[in-house]
Amino acid sequence: MFREEIKVLDCTIRDGGLINDYQFSRDFVNAVYRSICESGVDIMEFGKKLAVSQEYTREKYGIWNFCDDDDIKRVIDSHESEYRPKVAVMFDVGRVDLSTLVPCDQSPVDMIRTACYVPDIDKGIDLVKRTKYLGYQTTINIMAVSAAIESDLIEALEQVNEIPEADFLYLVDSFGAFYSEQVTYYLDLYRKHAPGKELGFHAHNNQQLGFSNTQQAIIDGVNLLDATINGIGRGAGNCNLELLLNFLKNPKFDVRPVYKVIQDEFVPLRHSIEWGFNDIYGISGHLNQHPRQGMKLRADKKLKDNCYDFFLESTRSDDVDIA
Amino acid sequence: MFREEIKVLDCTIRDGGLINDYQFSRDFVNAVYRSICESGVDIMEFGKKLAVSQEYTREKYGIWNFCDDDDIKRVIDSHESEYRPKVAVMFDVGRVDLSTLVPCDQSPVDMIRTACYVPDIDKGIDLVKRTKYLGYQTTINIMAVSAAIESDLIEALEQVNEIPEADFLYLVDSFGAFYSEQVTYYLDLYRKHAPGKELGFHAHNNQQLGFSNTQQAIIDGVNLLDATINGIGRGAGNCNLELLLNFLKNPKFDVRPVYKVIQDEFVPLRHSIEWGFNDIYGISGHLNQHPRQGMKLRADKKLKDNCYDFFLESTRSDDVDIA
Repeated sequence: MFREEIKVLDCTIRDGGLINDYQFSRDFVNAVYRSICESGVDIMEFGKKLAVSQEYTREKYGIWNFCDDDDIKRVIDSHESEYRPKVAVMFDVGRVDLSTLVPCDQSPVDMIRTACYVPDIDKGIDLVKRTKYLGYQTTINIMAVSAAIESDLIEALEQVNEIPEADFLYLVDSFGAFYSEQVTYYLDLYRKHAPGKELGFHAHNNQQLGFSNTQQAIIDGVNLLDATINGIGRGAGNCNLELLLNFLKNPKFDVRPVYKVIQDEFVPLRHSIEWGFNDIYGISGHLNQHPRQGMKLRADKKLKDNCYDFFLESTRSDDVDIA
Repeated sequence: MFREEIKVLDCTIRDGGLINDYQFSRDFVNAVYRSICESGVDIMEFGKKLAVSQEYTREKYGIWNFCDDDDIKRVIDSHESEYRPKVAVMFDVGRVDLSTLVPCDQSPVDMIRTACYVPDIDKGIDLVKRTKYLGYQTTINIMAVSAAIESDLIEALEQVNEIPEADFLYLVDSFGAFYSEQVTYYLDLYRKHAPGKELGFHAHNNQQLGFSNTQQAIIDGVNLLDATINGIGRGAGNCNLELLLNFLKNPKFDVRPVYKVIQDEFVPLRHSIEWGFNDIYGISGHLNQHPRQGMKLRADKKLKDNCYDFFLESTRSDDVDIA
């Protein structure tokens, strides 16, 4: 039996765009949108909504780093559909220009997700309040909590709990470091210190646990779940949307359009960009480290599979002893 | 904290050999053996111990389909080591010649694992009794239980429970169909109907759940765990040994030699044979089907990634309606 409250958020374009600087073709994004419409997924995140600047241009960083309303509308207009997913975009603290944000009722965007680290929680909360004021549904996604000092995290959770403007509070396994028991541990912590908030969960697949940890979050009562088509995403990628829809059993979902777009669009895409589990990301996840070093290694054609060297380098204590 | 009772069985050669008809070079098997010695893994399974026949030859089917004591001894002698893992081989019901089996104290083999389907449980039990009579440690690995009629399975479990000759009883997720809740469900069933048996668990990775389901088995009290280096194995492969050792935290294990042999031997091997998750195996796992059709598709260079077509074909009801 399925749980009716569960909603699935597809962040294929937003998380996948981290690999290729959001250089997806319009046809590709249209195809993803179509599959999300047809599969009945609840929410689709189109990208980040960052501020354009002279250095930070649409050409270089891709239009889905900026998510102009007009670009989103073009995608929506590309496909006739009775059912339409809600549209989300992501804010990064310190990189947005709120003066350009129109009220929700004038925009194709329904939900704005604010991503921030624990030390930036006040800035994150400020953005959440402002976006809610403009009528958007809001989430706050606290990143890298596996590397945060717990007392700081607790304080952040208590602050989020105080603001009615935050509709959802996200547990994010940024480094793919969690086992199922950590998912449960953190969710308990979130519930204890932010009891008034609906929770979301965003996994990474460094240790082949993106999908299973999302299941654990479901078991633990989370009702807003992130996933991406074919698991696309930075480094080891995310929870695979197709696996999740298979698991959820909700008759409102149809997994076939997801397999269709994988076959037609994602299989060819794998020839030019890489994502998914390998032992390099397994090591960075196990060691609770940012995937930065692993991604650097994977970009080196000669060294990309040297997991033994990477393990030694990531765990050596001779020149980094800080005891 | 680690659980001291937990033992890890490496079945890299035995399960990996299913992909390449056991055509591993001697150097490759020596390298695997060395890494298992150095990493402190408890048991290494070398292959199957099947009967040679005119049709079923060592040349065509590879020496590790037959596991002659002399071949095993050559591997053991190839590496000086203070610590040595126990040596296991696997019996397939109906394909063994017991008359060639010497007593355990004259053989390098310590453990014989008998694999059988539910309908063959009496044959399996017979083999377990005979191998125990010769002094071997024994396991019985009931395959494809996710596709067995439960009352038949229960009867089989009760029979296994009656024979003191079976040291371990294995839950095997042959089709990679289990979610964590099914692991728990079946383990409860096994405990209820075979309360006298120590349990083992063997996962497959069709839905990216090989490692997480093995964790679930640990949580549920299983103390004998199968894994393979880099997850090598038929179709989507198995639980990755390196991920499992990272998780277990037992100081007797050292994961580094496993990463070393991956870097040196398994990365090159991936150029000639394929294993691991993809959406084809994800579909066969989800549908609780034998990976046979998926493997056939993966062998077809043109069609191998056509997951949408495969899903439709695997779920069509027009010509297979048997209601």
